[in-house]
Amino acid sequence: MQTNLSINETRLWDSLMDIAQFGLTPKGGCRRLALSDTDKAGRDQFVKWCEEAGCTVSVDAMGNIFARRPGKNNDLPPIVLGSHLDTQPSGGKFDGVFGVMAALEVVRTLKDLNYTTEAPIEVAVWTNEEGSRFAPAMISSGVFAGVFDLEYGLSRADLDGIKIGDELKRIGYAGSEPCGGRKLGAYFEAHIEQGPILDLEEKTVGVVTDVQGMRWYEATVKGQDAHTGATPMYMRKDALAGVAEMVLEIEKIGKKYHPIGVGSVGLIQVKPNSRNVVPGEVFFTIDFRHPDAKVMDEMDADMRAAVAKIAEARKLDLDLKEIWYSAPVHFDESCVAAVRKGVEELGYSHRDMVSGAGHDACYLARVTPTSMIFIPCVGGLSHNEEEDIQPAWAAAGCNVLLRAAVEKANAHS
Amino acid sequence: MQTNLSINETRLWDSLMDIAQFGLTPKGGCRRLALSDTDKAGRDQFVKWCEEAGCTVSVDAMGNIFARRPGKNNDLPPIVLGSHLDTQPSGGKFDGVFGVMAALEVVRTLKDLNYTTEAPIEVAVWTNEEGSRFAPAMISSGVFAGVFDLEYGLSRADLDGIKIGDELKRIGYAGSEPCGGRKLGAYFEAHIEQGPILDLEEKTVGVVTDVQGMRWYEATVKGQDAHTGATPMYMRKDALAGVAEMVLEIEKIGKKYHPIGVGSVGLIQVKPNSRNVVPGEVFFTIDFRHPDAKVMDEMDADMRAAVAKIAEARKLDLDLKEIWYSAPVHFDESCVAAVRKGVEELGYSHRDMVSGAGHDACYLARVTPTSMIFIPCVGGLSHNEEEDIQPAWAAAGCNVLLRAAVEKANAHS
Repeated sequence: MQTNLSINETRLWDSLMDIAQFGLTPKGGCRRLALSDTDKAGRDQFVKWCEEAGCTVSVDAMGNIFARRPGKNNDLPPIVLGSHLDTQPSGGKFDGVFGVMAALEVVRTLKDLNYTTEAPIEVAVWTNEEGSRFAPAMISSGVFAGVFDLEYGLSRADLDGIKIGDELKRIGYAGSEPCGGRKLGAYFEAHIEQGPILDLEEKTVGVVTDVQGMRWYEATVKGQDAHTGATPMYMRKDALAGVAEMVLEIEKIGKKYHPIGVGSVGLIQVKPNSRNVVPGEVFFTIDFRHPDAKVMDEMDADMRAAVAKIAEARKLDLDLKEIWYSAPVHFDESCVAAVRKGVEELGYSHRDMVSGAGHDACYLARVTPTSMIFIPCVGGLSHNEEEDIQPAWAAAGCNVLLRAAVEKANAHS
Repeated sequence: MQTNLSINETRLWDSLMDIAQFGLTPKGGCRRLALSDTDKAGRDQFVKWCEEAGCTVSVDAMGNIFARRPGKNNDLPPIVLGSHLDTQPSGGKFDGVFGVMAALEVVRTLKDLNYTTEAPIEVAVWTNEEGSRFAPAMISSGVFAGVFDLEYGLSRADLDGIKIGDELKRIGYAGSEPCGGRKLGAYFEAHIEQGPILDLEEKTVGVVTDVQGMRWYEATVKGQDAHTGATPMYMRKDALAGVAEMVLEIEKIGKKYHPIGVGSVGLIQVKPNSRNVVPGEVFFTIDFRHPDAKVMDEMDADMRAAVAKIAEARKLDLDLKEIWYSAPVHFDESCVAAVRKGVEELGYSHRDMVSGAGHDACYLARVTPTSMIFIPCVGGLSHNEEEDIQPAWAAAGCNVLLRAAVEKANAHS
């Protein structure tokens, strides 16, 4: 293996800054919701860059994009590198996007060096990883990996009732390729940590061995709309006051399984949401995570008992649904080894890590050898417009990605 | 005074059902937000009915509508009867609308009987009483009474930033008459109770002597957006969890001053409101009411101490503003007496009451002798699509309104 392979740090950073223009917010963050007009514009730019880098671009039925750089032996299954381009409603410039731009930089570098790997290399963009416009998260890598069927994926709707399938057609990314069902050689995903550990410990690269399990719920609590002035306190069925208690119980469960476990309520919708009406209905979501499936079952049981007790005491109707469960993931040893080898060759400070966030790699791991590469983000801030990284961290993660990809792509040579 | 005056119960009920068609919801409630297209359509219908009843219609600079039925002596200040046509986002068919339709039925009845009062009688519709689209509530009766100046009134904006003045122009109700500044003889407002007392005690009419004081606040709590999966519990600044504690403290303060005092959070907006983001910012509103201004000061102090303590403990930024204070109101003795006399002549079961809700009458009371007439609503339900009344209750309230209006209009004869 050629050991002096190195990516172009300036080009990588410029691409990150250029793609951030699609949905750039006044605070320097990014709002590029899945399948919005802004997402389409960002995708178009990405496709153009891939074609300029000599790749052939295809799109599958879930709108996942694959930019293929041929190998010496194109009968070998491709080594796939990727992540997502969609962002949170007020997200940062690096979550997901870094993994895609790093993968693009890998193929650009190989082109510069006129280096052809044995197996082909593909850069992948997975549709709607965030799950903030369409739930659940990682829906399209999930369809690719056979976790969800295509019909389910296309029919997921946002809060306005607009479906993924219709939005894909509207923005021109309802592709002709089948989603999944083909053999990959390996999958690598580079990503910002989205947590504080690497930054606190001043490590440049995280070798990701596992991903926490995740459990998502939706709950609707119904009480009774009533006039805030004329309805005595004892006659109220205040859905918001009930949900306020539930939010605090969910926080308490997260703290109980501290420091690894987390429990969060991120989304809440109140009806009718008027200053002088006691709220009659509240919809909210719950997100629990832990790397141990047994502990997740305990968190589930704790939460169910707590919310049922609150609803009963306040005479509120409770409709609680688990809408998504992503089991803890243990990554492929050979892929983790390829990443670790790259980090060690390059001499970056590093540590092994468990990812707290979910990633497309969780689903890819079901159908191909997979692992991930983390770089730090400042203060651990993510899903935040102030999310930030240093160009040198981006370059380090990208260089490791390049080495792991080349290692795996040449494994059959 | 002619003692056999009586309104037409069927016509009154039909008008209530007809006007409810403008904004009727599938559950049988009404959504006719102030200055929406639906509000315009309802206003147009009302104006048509008034003209058919022989009234001259004028509109003032805040979009308040006055339908005038001449008296024998048109130099006398008019006796004004009215309420509002706007509703809550998911409101009922009677809140406000009953008082307007009852006033219309009074002039229709006088026309049927060819009965001319000494002073003219006017039916008034006040713009944006509810305060749910534009805060504060009762804004246009407030401008009429000199509580707010016209510029303030016209510049109030909804959550999308759309101003009252622009919406009035858009729907054709930016009238040429000045808002306020003219002498009225008296003001009567018939209204559903919006609370449970009359229904529980099986009384047909409430003789309203006072209105509770009201205090409205807006609060913005800022923490930090963060990833729900990768941010340990101890590192979070969760604005929603903080506000959940505040909501429960506000409920506790309402309960402390039970059964007369009330404290409520009706509106809450979470940012970014995404399933996998720890909420970094929450906006919410507070509504406190009590008939004693001193007790309201205690509630204010209790609340300020509680929310500041929560914000400090959680390291959240808190921006708390009192946006509206409506002092407790004591109605005019002669108007209350006119209502009581009408109820007693008609033999309806009745009781004296303090209104828990705010009404345009609170502001009118500052510039003219004023009082109110309550009728029951089923189960005390209001600001709710299931708000309901019986036709006989509507007729009783309207007959009392007719007698009080005629009594006052003939007081100079």
